[in-house]
Amino acid sequence: MGDVQTIAPRSGAGFTLDRGQTLTVIDPEGRQVSDLLAFNRADIREGISSGRTLDYASRLYLTTGDRLYSNRSNVMLDIVSDDVGRHDFLLTPCSKETFAIIYGDTDPHRGCFGNLAEALAPWGVEPDMIPVAFNCFMNVPIDGATGTFTVEPPLSKAGDTIVFRAEMDLIIGMTACSALQSNGGSFKPIQYRID
Amino acid sequence: MGDVQTIAPRSGAGFTLDRGQTLTVIDPEGRQVSDLLAFNRADIREGISSGRTLDYASRLYLTTGDRLYSNRSNVMLDIVSDDVGRHDFLLTPCSKETFAIIYGDTDPHRGCFGNLAEALAPWGVEPDMIPVAFNCFMNVPIDGATGTFTVEPPLSKAGDTIVFRAEMDLIIGMTACSALQSNGGSFKPIQYRID
Repeated sequence: MGDVQTIAPRSGAGFTLDRGQTLTVIDPEGRQVSDLLAFNRADIREGISSGRTLDYASRLYLTTGDRLYSNRSNVMLDIVSDDVGRHDFLLTPCSKETFAIIYGDTDPHRGCFGNLAEALAPWGVEPDMIPVAFNCFMNVPIDGATGTFTVEPPLSKAGDTIVFRAEMDLIIGMTACSALQSNGGSFKPIQYRID
Repeated sequence: MGDVQTIAPRSGAGFTLDRGQTLTVIDPEGRQVSDLLAFNRADIREGISSGRTLDYASRLYLTTGDRLYSNRSNVMLDIVSDDVGRHDFLLTPCSKETFAIIYGDTDPHRGCFGNLAEALAPWGVEPDMIPVAFNCFMNVPIDGATGTFTVEPPLSKAGDTIVFRAEMDLIIGMTACSALQSNGGSFKPIQYRID
């Protein structure tokens, strides 16, 4: 088994994942979201796509057995196990603008967006290329009749995991999410392991 | 009033829209979807973002009074009137891969994706830059409990419109959608007018 890596609260990490390797995302304390992005290491213009993935799944809430597709309709990651069963694939990483617009912050944190931009910069991924992330453990219940949704505390408990298998050589960006609402009101670390 | 332009069934169009102009999207026969994309004319790396827009609206179904944001959290388009009230902002434009994966087509049409790629190429927009489109008149009801959704015939009747006002100088890509399921089983034209 690989070493467990820790992402400090309100920060991010970038790393490579080879085809066939698994990535275990761990919520060590519970109720903490991790935004996850994936890009094709051979051509970073190919990246994870919520629109393709949701279209092929015909379901908003993805879990074990579901596959995350790229903008070119290739499978990037398979979800091979999942303790929680509730994640979000609708919303973009929180950013300075998110905190200004939704929270009214006057000196906003750079958020997951800024953390992902820094983490992915070494591979040439530019901020404008950051799409909707797969938001591990993020809990966004939807009222089907009206389409309204709310951001509620994650359902994850301490030690819960979601495990992905890479279907191509990837660059991964991951965060310990920086938005109060998404994390039940406190900022906690996220851990991951590559096997 | 501007001239009414017609987009033939299963095709697309690209054009510019100046800040302050309105774009009226018309469903001339009813039950026909039009995928709509917008890029900042001054910098095409800034494009329409479902993730930003849905986050700020806290609602999946957008209508009059809602604003469509870019990946940089700037307002690109305001919805100033809407006869239908049901559109989709979850799913990517249908493509060769959509028809192969979902419909099992052996010689698939290039779909809205291919039509948009051709329509936007003169401005330097590359296929990999095509995000989730705002799918005018597309009817995707969601089961809030399970997150499952289906693609149902549009609720639009002949002559129904949705009207957008540009908040920046834009490049617009639009289609008469090519997917049978999205259009109640037949391919019809879409019209638009710029004022």
